[in-house]
Amino acid sequence: MTTQLNERRIANAIRVLAMDAVQQANSGHPGAPMGMADIADVVWREFLNHNPSNPQWANRDRFVLSNGHGSMLQYALLHLTGYDLSIEDLKQFRQLHSKTPGHPELGYAPGIETTTGPLGQGIANAVGFAIAEKTLAAQFNKADLTVIDHYTYCFLGDGCLMEGISHEVCSLAGTLNLGKLVVYYDDNGISIDGEVEGWFSDDTEQRFHAYGWQVLRVDGHDTDAIREATLTAKAESNKPTLIICKTVIGLGSPNKQGKEDCHGAPLGKDEIVLTREALGWNEDAFVIPADIYAAWDAKAKGQQSEQAWNEIFAQYQAKYPTEAVELKRRIAGDLPADFAAQADQFIAETNAKGETIATRKASQNTLQAFGPLLPELLGGSADLAGSNLTLWKGCEGVQDNPAGNYIHYGVREFGMTAIANGIALHGGFIPYVATFLMFMEYARNAVRMSALMKQRVIHVYTHDSIGLGEDGPTHQPIEQIASLRGTPNLNTWRPADTVETAIAWKSGLQRQDGPTALILSRQNLPFQNRTAEQLDNIAKGGYVLAAEKGELKAIIIATGSEVDLAMQAYAELDGVRVVSMPCAEIFVQQDAAYREAVLPVQVRARVAVEAAHVDYWWKFVGLDGKVIGMTTYGESAPAKDLFKYFGITKDAVVEAVKAVI
Amino acid sequence: MTTQLNERRIANAIRVLAMDAVQQANSGHPGAPMGMADIADVVWREFLNHNPSNPQWANRDRFVLSNGHGSMLQYALLHLTGYDLSIEDLKQFRQLHSKTPGHPELGYAPGIETTTGPLGQGIANAVGFAIAEKTLAAQFNKADLTVIDHYTYCFLGDGCLMEGISHEVCSLAGTLNLGKLVVYYDDNGISIDGEVEGWFSDDTEQRFHAYGWQVLRVDGHDTDAIREATLTAKAESNKPTLIICKTVIGLGSPNKQGKEDCHGAPLGKDEIVLTREALGWNEDAFVIPADIYAAWDAKAKGQQSEQAWNEIFAQYQAKYPTEAVELKRRIAGDLPADFAAQADQFIAETNAKGETIATRKASQNTLQAFGPLLPELLGGSADLAGSNLTLWKGCEGVQDNPAGNYIHYGVREFGMTAIANGIALHGGFIPYVATFLMFMEYARNAVRMSALMKQRVIHVYTHDSIGLGEDGPTHQPIEQIASLRGTPNLNTWRPADTVETAIAWKSGLQRQDGPTALILSRQNLPFQNRTAEQLDNIAKGGYVLAAEKGELKAIIIATGSEVDLAMQAYAELDGVRVVSMPCAEIFVQQDAAYREAVLPVQVRARVAVEAAHVDYWWKFVGLDGKVIGMTTYGESAPAKDLFKYFGITKDAVVEAVKAVI
Repeated sequence: MTTQLNERRIANAIRVLAMDAVQQANSGHPGAPMGMADIADVVWREFLNHNPSNPQWANRDRFVLSNGHGSMLQYALLHLTGYDLSIEDLKQFRQLHSKTPGHPELGYAPGIETTTGPLGQGIANAVGFAIAEKTLAAQFNKADLTVIDHYTYCFLGDGCLMEGISHEVCSLAGTLNLGKLVVYYDDNGISIDGEVEGWFSDDTEQRFHAYGWQVLRVDGHDTDAIREATLTAKAESNKPTLIICKTVIGLGSPNKQGKEDCHGAPLGKDEIVLTREALGWNEDAFVIPADIYAAWDAKAKGQQSEQAWNEIFAQYQAKYPTEAVELKRRIAGDLPADFAAQADQFIAETNAKGETIATRKASQNTLQAFGPLLPELLGGSADLAGSNLTLWKGCEGVQDNPAGNYIHYGVREFGMTAIANGIALHGGFIPYVATFLMFMEYARNAVRMSALMKQRVIHVYTHDSIGLGEDGPTHQPIEQIASLRGTPNLNTWRPADTVETAIAWKSGLQRQDGPTALILSRQNLPFQNRTAEQLDNIAKGGYVLAAEKGELKAIIIATGSEVDLAMQAYAELDGVRVVSMPCAEIFVQQDAAYREAVLPVQVRARVAVEAAHVDYWWKFVGLDGKVIGMTTYGESAPAKDLFKYFGITKDAVVEAVKAVI
Repeated sequence: MTTQLNERRIANAIRVLAMDAVQQANSGHPGAPMGMADIADVVWREFLNHNPSNPQWANRDRFVLSNGHGSMLQYALLHLTGYDLSIEDLKQFRQLHSKTPGHPELGYAPGIETTTGPLGQGIANAVGFAIAEKTLAAQFNKADLTVIDHYTYCFLGDGCLMEGISHEVCSLAGTLNLGKLVVYYDDNGISIDGEVEGWFSDDTEQRFHAYGWQVLRVDGHDTDAIREATLTAKAESNKPTLIICKTVIGLGSPNKQGKEDCHGAPLGKDEIVLTREALGWNEDAFVIPADIYAAWDAKAKGQQSEQAWNEIFAQYQAKYPTEAVELKRRIAGDLPADFAAQADQFIAETNAKGETIATRKASQNTLQAFGPLLPELLGGSADLAGSNLTLWKGCEGVQDNPAGNYIHYGVREFGMTAIANGIALHGGFIPYVATFLMFMEYARNAVRMSALMKQRVIHVYTHDSIGLGEDGPTHQPIEQIASLRGTPNLNTWRPADTVETAIAWKSGLQRQDGPTALILSRQNLPFQNRTAEQLDNIAKGGYVLAAEKGELKAIIIATGSEVDLAMQAYAELDGVRVVSMPCAEIFVQQDAAYREAVLPVQVRARVAVEAAHVDYWWKFVGLDGKVIGMTTYGESAPAKDLFKYFGITKDAVVEAVKAVI
């Protein structure tokens, strides 16, 4: 401690707001806000370039609270610096429909840049922000005019550093020379189970040196040292900086500071009284003196900052009008005006060609067509570019060309996906990321976070079933597609051929309120012929691909590689309809009349076929239907042997249809 | 290179077998086996203490190929050293029902200790083996007699080191001083996308120093250096050792060595001819000269080793008969003979008590009862011991007491789970691991691996729904339970009260062929009264908890916290039956008569209620039923407000039942 606690009244405003709000909610985490208050004081009052009156200002510094359980720290900062977050909002901490949920949630309070709480993903998002800034800057800045130029500040704790994802993203941040990423580590030596030394004894300084970072150490309650370190961080343009801040968790609480007791529970009324005394803080709960408000208020400074940037942008607009229009479009997240028409043109050409290729190859062809139209694409793969087929001819790695459009993420599925969330949140880009469908599981919670945060991220998953063959059960997805389909606000497409693949990409790119997963085959899939109406209906997620001959007696529902099996069975059966269902989530959103036209409710003789776990499909076939698919793990063998062995064949479909009629 | 390639004939046997088998399968990864052949030569011929004639010998050294795509390396080693894996088996590489699937799969070839392929999990399993060895040794060895004393050797590549899980487990391995873990890093500078420097520039030596490891560097083709380093590794008893082996991927292939071309594809016939020339290898494909076989043969040495150990064990048995019996039981994986009776006694007492407590608390009470009976329990939590309630009074951390029974895993869900798989695979222990249900997702693929490998791991997941309240949508599971239920060979229990919780634990502990997930509430759940028959039926996964009053008109199916809602609705309805379904996977395995007795097929008026994603339940309620549950993300608020807001209430159940009748 360089000064007495009661001398740091400005920072103490955070401490009291945090402990009071947690107490009022009778739930929450006071320890981190109280421990990091002095760091926050320096970063937010002296460095963070933001405008509380316009949380969407494009060139603002980004702030990420990776230790999201300390949400009251961020709410206090937003309130004190002048965002539209009142003291009444703070009193509603953790209550239904408040702006102040238990963890920072995107879209609830202004100024929250990303949803945090799942540990380690905040720092991954921050790496994404820094990549987006660096890439957008390289794409748009001119020698004489800099329009994209901001820092990304991130707070994190022991938990984030223990999580594996912190390794993935901090390693990559070092490799990518993200010099404008500044991270403050709340080194308080305490996690939920107690003093971390029994389970976390890393030399974190050495670890981050190994990643190529600049690492600084400070007393996290010494504001001069924090300031000095932040200046040193900003002066280093080639390396990200980790500032290891030795802190006391819950600082100010006479009986609980430095202990796990204050991590995740209210201090209690008596301890709050004692803490007020220790802090020399005489105000009632939720009362902040005017001079303290004045010291925090960032509105005027923020407006000046944005105004200064607006002037630069006006010059940019005058001198580089095309780029200015394009940058505005990119930041707004609008697609080019002619994209839809061009995409439809490509789809028509694809339909005319009628190629029998793998849908992963169809995906690459689509990227080759759409890529030149969409400079906002920022692609990548977790070291499977040649298998996922995510590279198109216009791809350049950001490591070779800072203005590039492709990231070699390395074998880092979780980090990649959470970084992509950060890139999408930053704005200016549509990220797509890829791995084998099985290894989506490594990234699973970040996929969920993209859906929870409604971000436009395209998740490309190839090698989608036992159809991948010899790599065997560890690589053959079974239950993974169902898991994606169950994820609220995620659209999961499993296209059957080239045309459905192109339409799936178009759907994902046009979608503004959430992510899309593309489930693609390793093996070739036959092209299906369609009428113009059928082509139009693909975008509805499910449609009649083959109308019944004669009276409708049964329906076969299929996706992806199994649509062709359904069509083969169809050829042998009368009164049977084939429904292709590339995106069930979109299909169920269609109006009742359309759904009834495709799947008439009185027709109960239904068979679903998909080389994935059967359980998903009972929803569509009911207790009287049958599902042909998987209930066990796969095996290692050539794909054709596996489909036969697991009974996913034309004959099995025919037999099932006969059984249900 | 310290010697000419054609002088290393012994190691070259691996190279040719790998390239020939991959060529024959027209699929696979020759690069790693060819690059690591010299390391394997030293480790397997000079150090690995194993007995090819008895792959189950309890005190054998464990070997893990974490870069499992190099499976032909391991198959070649098993074949050459004398395991029951013939040259015909190698010719069947990657074919259906062969002993040589694409990745090493437990239970296919003898000597495979764990299934690898999903990168990073092999090293995690290896850490689990080393923990198990150290703990079992501390529990059973005597000052005068050492019966548990083996090393764990692990090979890994760049991919494993990029994966986040490698951070989690290597950090913990350092903290736990696993001195008998020796890891060889195939530092070939190549991953699938090409030269790794563009995406992987860690100073790995520094990184592992940060974890407290001994780190050595060698030329991975210099057998003297590899030998020397291995001796140095074995001499360090307090730190795990990483030996960084600079290698040339695909060494021996004149045109492909050192390039990504040889990583994951056959070399091609012409290149194989050239490689034979370069290696000075004149035999036909799959032909190994007798002198080479003789040089590799480890059968005699292995039998001697085991015999020597058997003699020590005989002395142990004579001097410490009780411990010897117990150790044999532990290694066999049998529960104590009186466990079932004691467990039933506890269940009866629990039933008599009828407590209304959270099922996480009921789980702790069960552990408190079963723990003293089961010294094989090796528990842990990812830094949530006080929330998951995984500690019981007999728990001692292995860091404080090497003979302890609890691991503070830190915030490392994925690492924890994959380590637990390694502990289970080692034998001698039943591991249980815990986190919030949501953060199962971080560990998701390791949960799957425990099921694929049929390992007895108990996955304890608390805070199972919106019922956790204020922590909000990032912490509230929705689709997670369905994802677990869809995982083949995993039993997922969501008990409704204290009794169902105790029976779920008993089921998981008694199960010998797979893992069990326990889905537990944060909030209190009312006790349900049951007849003796109902009590018995809990173990069947689903049963009639409340028989219909009058003629059966409708069925309500519920689990966990929603069973009480169903019972409240039942009180208001005639002709309605309540089915509690704590483990649907076990229920569907019951005979048809039992299933029909619980869910008569003609009764289509069915309502399922579960505070989780609705989609899972269509399987049971069909197209005419209704499901009350979640389809969106949760919110941050007190639990009671959330159940009301999301319409998971007694009134909603009543209304749904009336609607379907």
